[in-house]
Amino acid sequence: MSAPVAIVMGSQSDWATMKCAADALDKLGVAYDARIVSAHRTPQRLVAFAEGAADEGFKVIIAGAGGAAHLPGMVASMTHLPVLGVPVQSKALSGQDSLLSIVQMPAGIPVGTLAIGEAGATNAGLLAAAILATTDPALAEKIKAFRTAQSASVAERPS
Amino acid sequence: MSAPVAIVMGSQSDWATMKCAADALDKLGVAYDARIVSAHRTPQRLVAFAEGAADEGFKVIIAGAGGAAHLPGMVASMTHLPVLGVPVQSKALSGQDSLLSIVQMPAGIPVGTLAIGEAGATNAGLLAAAILATTDPALAEKIKAFRTAQSASVAERPS
Amino acid sequence: MSAPVAIVMGSQSDWATMKCAADALDKLGVAYDARIVSAHRTPQRLVAFAEGAADEGFKVIIAGAGGAAHLPGMVASMTHLPVLGVPVQSKALSGQDSLLSIVQMPAGIPVGTLAIGEAGATNAGLLAAAILATTDPALAEKIKAFRTAQSASVAERPS
Amino acid sequence: MSAPVAIVMGSQSDWATMKCAADALDKLGVAYDARIVSAHRTPQRLVAFAEGAADEGFKVIIAGAGGAAHLPGMVASMTHLPVLGVPVQSKALSGQDSLLSIVQMPAGIPVGTLAIGEAGATNAGLLAAAILATTDPALAEKIKAFRTAQSASVAERPS
Amino acid sequence: MSAPVAIVMGSQSDWATMKCAADALDKLGVAYDARIVSAHRTPQRLVAFAEGAADEGFKVIIAGAGGAAHLPGMVASMTHLPVLGVPVQSKALSGQDSLLSIVQMPAGIPVGTLAIGEAGATNAGLLAAAILATTDPALAEKIKAFRTAQSASVAERPS
Amino acid sequence: MSAPVAIVMGSQSDWATMKCAADALDKLGVAYDARIVSAHRTPQRLVAFAEGAADEGFKVIIAGAGGAAHLPGMVASMTHLPVLGVPVQSKALSGQDSLLSIVQMPAGIPVGTLAIGEAGATNAGLLAAAILATTDPALAEKIKAFRTAQSASVAERPS
Amino acid sequence: MSAPVAIVMGSQSDWATMKCAADALDKLGVAYDARIVSAHRTPQRLVAFAEGAADEGFKVIIAGAGGAAHLPGMVASMTHLPVLGVPVQSKALSGQDSLLSIVQMPAGIPVGTLAIGEAGATNAGLLAAAILATTDPALAEKIKAFRTAQSASVAERPS
Amino acid sequence: MSAPVAIVMGSQSDWATMKCAADALDKLGVAYDARIVSAHRTPQRLVAFAEGAADEGFKVIIAGAGGAAHLPGMVASMTHLPVLGVPVQSKALSGQDSLLSIVQMPAGIPVGTLAIGEAGATNAGLLAAAILATTDPALAEKIKAFRTAQSASVAERPS
Repeated sequence: MSAPVAIVMGSQSDWATMKCAADALDKLGVAYDARIVSAHRTPQRLVAFAEGAADEGFKVIIAGAGGAAHLPGMVASMTHLPVLGVPVQSKALSGQDSLLSIVQMPAGIPVGTLAIGEAGATNAGLLAAAILATTDPALAEKIKAFRTAQSASVAERPS
Repeated sequence: MSAPVAIVMGSQSDWATMKCAADALDKLGVAYDARIVSAHRTPQRLVAFAEGAADEGFKVIIAGAGGAAHLPGMVASMTHLPVLGVPVQSKALSGQDSLLSIVQMPAGIPVGTLAIGEAGATNAGLLAAAILATTDPALAEKIKAFRTAQSASVAERPS
Repeated sequence: MSAPVAIVMGSQSDWATMKCAADALDKLGVAYDARIVSAHRTPQRLVAFAEGAADEGFKVIIAGAGGAAHLPGMVASMTHLPVLGVPVQSKALSGQDSLLSIVQMPAGIPVGTLAIGEAGATNAGLLAAAILATTDPALAEKIKAFRTAQSASVAERPS
Repeated sequence: MSAPVAIVMGSQSDWATMKCAADALDKLGVAYDARIVSAHRTPQRLVAFAEGAADEGFKVIIAGAGGAAHLPGMVASMTHLPVLGVPVQSKALSGQDSLLSIVQMPAGIPVGTLAIGEAGATNAGLLAAAILATTDPALAEKIKAFRTAQSASVAERPS
Repeated sequence: MSAPVAIVMGSQSDWATMKCAADALDKLGVAYDARIVSAHRTPQRLVAFAEGAADEGFKVIIAGAGGAAHLPGMVASMTHLPVLGVPVQSKALSGQDSLLSIVQMPAGIPVGTLAIGEAGATNAGLLAAAILATTDPALAEKIKAFRTAQSASVAERPS
Repeated sequence: MSAPVAIVMGSQSDWATMKCAADALDKLGVAYDARIVSAHRTPQRLVAFAEGAADEGFKVIIAGAGGAAHLPGMVASMTHLPVLGVPVQSKALSGQDSLLSIVQMPAGIPVGTLAIGEAGATNAGLLAAAILATTDPALAEKIKAFRTAQSASVAERPS
Repeated sequence: MSAPVAIVMGSQSDWATMKCAADALDKLGVAYDARIVSAHRTPQRLVAFAEGAADEGFKVIIAGAGGAAHLPGMVASMTHLPVLGVPVQSKALSGQDSLLSIVQMPAGIPVGTLAIGEAGATNAGLLAAAILATTDPALAEKIKAFRTAQSASVAERPS
Repeated sequence: MSAPVAIVMGSQSDWATMKCAADALDKLGVAYDARIVSAHRTPQRLVAFAEGAADEGFKVIIAGAGGAAHLPGMVASMTHLPVLGVPVQSKALSGQDSLLSIVQMPAGIPVGTLAIGEAGATNAGLLAAAILATTDPALAEKIKAFRTAQSASVAERPS
């Protein structure tokens, strides 16, 4: 059976960020398939991936990119699957360009956007799991347990 | 049977924006329940709603707010359901405050954030439907049909 | 013979801005073909247009879009023709999102970006003409004449 | 007798900043209680703290957080005590997200916001003391002495 | 007996905003004295006001200004009383200049800053009352009642 | 025969960035002439260069500068050749000042602006080549080959 | 005798703003000469004006422009006279582009920059007068009187 | 005879930046007096300095500060001498707060603002000299010579 989550990113260098999405899914036991799909350098690969994602068996797509970050929105334009976008922190503008390029989609084609950088990638993994858990009670229990452990890990006092 | 989607917003004035989420869900035949839940003025209502949302039968929550927009993130902190955030356009800062308050969540508690204003609200509705459609083939077909119609409605030439 | 310049835009509403590009080309006697190509709502039309643009005989492409403005960059990713981008002024963020989405392209796929709004559209038309004029002396003369007239039209004193 | 000032922060990592608030209170001989209360990871702790703060004997609350910084505003929503907010400098956006998330509160629930980072934390301590000093003449004298010493410490000429 | 709260503002035009602070204090039965004190056009009045505020009997100072808004910080530099700052919405930059000019105070001289515009002014009034209420149980009860009424005024459903 | 592309920059320190434009042209076998022309420190050199560029045989001009970056726009004001602008990353504002100073040209004088920093410089070289290729089939083939190689160099999976 | 102050602006439309500089000079009895000098549309007029300004007898130059506002900096590059810059409020970016284009000059060529819009133009007039007054005691007295009247015109209380 | 230029700054740490103003004046043989005057920590020193500056014999004042930078504007409010402001680069916001706090002065009290950081400080020195040179032909010659040398120091080609 194919993985339910695809993690795509615009370049190899995005993996340092996007690995956090993979780690989050690993913690919750959700399988994923990570690929490099550059909207600008490999547009045909983009089209092939996005149009075929549903048929490959993916249920949710996580897409990360930086700068003029077109990957999440363009994937979303060619699939009816839910797409989550991660703005990778860019060099000059610290991800402000990535964020606006991903989140400001026009009405009709949504991308659920997470925070800039690693926190956003981690949360993309968690949100993908939460989406799958809407009809997977066992996964929902895992998320609840993760949340409980996360709460418990917060110390009462700073040190 | 309860509605699968909750639409919550910080104030009555947000409804002008959030109604677009409701309209999108209406078009796709997805039921929703719209409520006002102010994170700041009704914190107890917030806690009650967020902690009880799963038991009420909701599958996805759409939360919209403006300014120091804490509603989406606080709802997300108290439920394992997927939460989508809509930054309502604010007066002085045009929604830049709303956007950053919603999207920049720390690792651990995700909010899938849409664009500022009406386009974002419409897309929150569409994304909520896409999430439900991951295990609802009939809804997936409706979304595909919506997409096809949307593409067909784009004129070839400007006039 | 086909027109040397294509003007594409993401939606009918962009025409109010992009018409300025057409007007500039009209003034210089350069033919163009104006079309609506939505990166998000008509991705297949985007691919068909961008991949076929050179074969259609276009020499330069002007692409305008607003918000998460992916059209110019995506067209550029699928053609070797020079692409000029016009950030259309958006509602909430006044075109700051459009500008960053268009100009911050990664190394490898250039988009020559003009100013936000009508001035940018006018200048896209003028720059497209300047590009064609690099090997068209008659057009170069027309541009020089336009420039001379433009200089002459500036009054000496405010009134 | 309980401490008059509570210092709460969203995570252990905020302590590096928030310790400056503690240092300022130490200098003025004002007791405080420092705790970690994560709005997002420990929402129940947040509710318990905020609702019980007045009964615990706190007179002023200092709350620091970064990114989508909801802690100060959410504490303020659940207590009638004065709440001072410190925007912790965030990684990608240097605290601009923290600042807007804290300061742009809607009418009805105030948070007195200080500067981004360590200067803001120091000043939160000083402002908390100034608030207590409105009815504590001895503390008012200490603040005046601190101010006098601070003025005296400014050299006449740069070196 | 003198009023416990001073409301000062940089110009007559700021009163449209700052009146919201007065209204909030009126609702809670807290007396105030409203004056125009321009840091730039009446610096001597500024010095006289700030240095004499404690002796006049004020307990809390609310200061509002726009643009290069120096009034709150300069008042704070010349009094040990708690100072609350209200960034008035400016014409070109919508209060972003006002906000940064007020909130980014250096360590040593705090200004508790509220939101840009009317919401911030209202909240400055509420926060001033909360400060006074730290040693005024009757006022604390009024604030609690105001809060309860505020919560009750939030409708359950949008219309 | 003279080089078809001029690369001008405001200072020696800009060369670290602008060298990427030269590298891109080198890869495609396009000759260029790189010069330092400071709009502010050598205005006469600016005038001489810009007014004489066409007569020197240049077909396209690439101009890079940082901060209040006037070079690209001023060159464009004195030549009918197409001018491409590269915003060099500045120290305090990370190139946001450079970008706005270059891209926000008024109607009448276009500058095709690329991304901030090295990516923008590389793309200026590629766009200059694309402009020359509109009437140079051999160069067009080289660009296509560059593009094909670029696409092929993108790995399928991150590592 | 020639006027001591030149007021130059990029276009007729800037006069609505720059007239405030003229008004300020009128009030202080300082003569000025107002001209339109477009850096981009009339570069030769720019060179002629800037290089000849000292010989014309001007002592101070006020230059206003909007968007990619190059006029003040380019004038400054070609004269040793003090140049004051006024950022005219632009349409899309409210003068943020104008401000950065004028103020962020590199070391070596200064432009004394005033606020965005009419306040900045008024202040440019006042600052030009203050510069002339450094060696004109009669003018210094007029400025002092203006200041005194200005202070006196500030009402004590809002109404 | 007293120095014609005062250089004041908000703290010792600003001297690293403001020394560039001193260096520029040194190069042109203009005497200056450098002092620390903190608007917030030494408000009385501020008043004494600003009110007495003309009587001390200063002709031009350079004032540098960072963050909520009130020093330049407050000095300007208490003297009729021309005041030049230097926004010192701040930690969190890179001097954007300093710039807006200094440049956005209301109509009536001008501050001629230079660039953020060292370039701005250098230019403040140069502009102060240019102001003095309006009635000092020998100094004007020095500035012209400085400019000529500066132009000559720009290499023709990058290396």
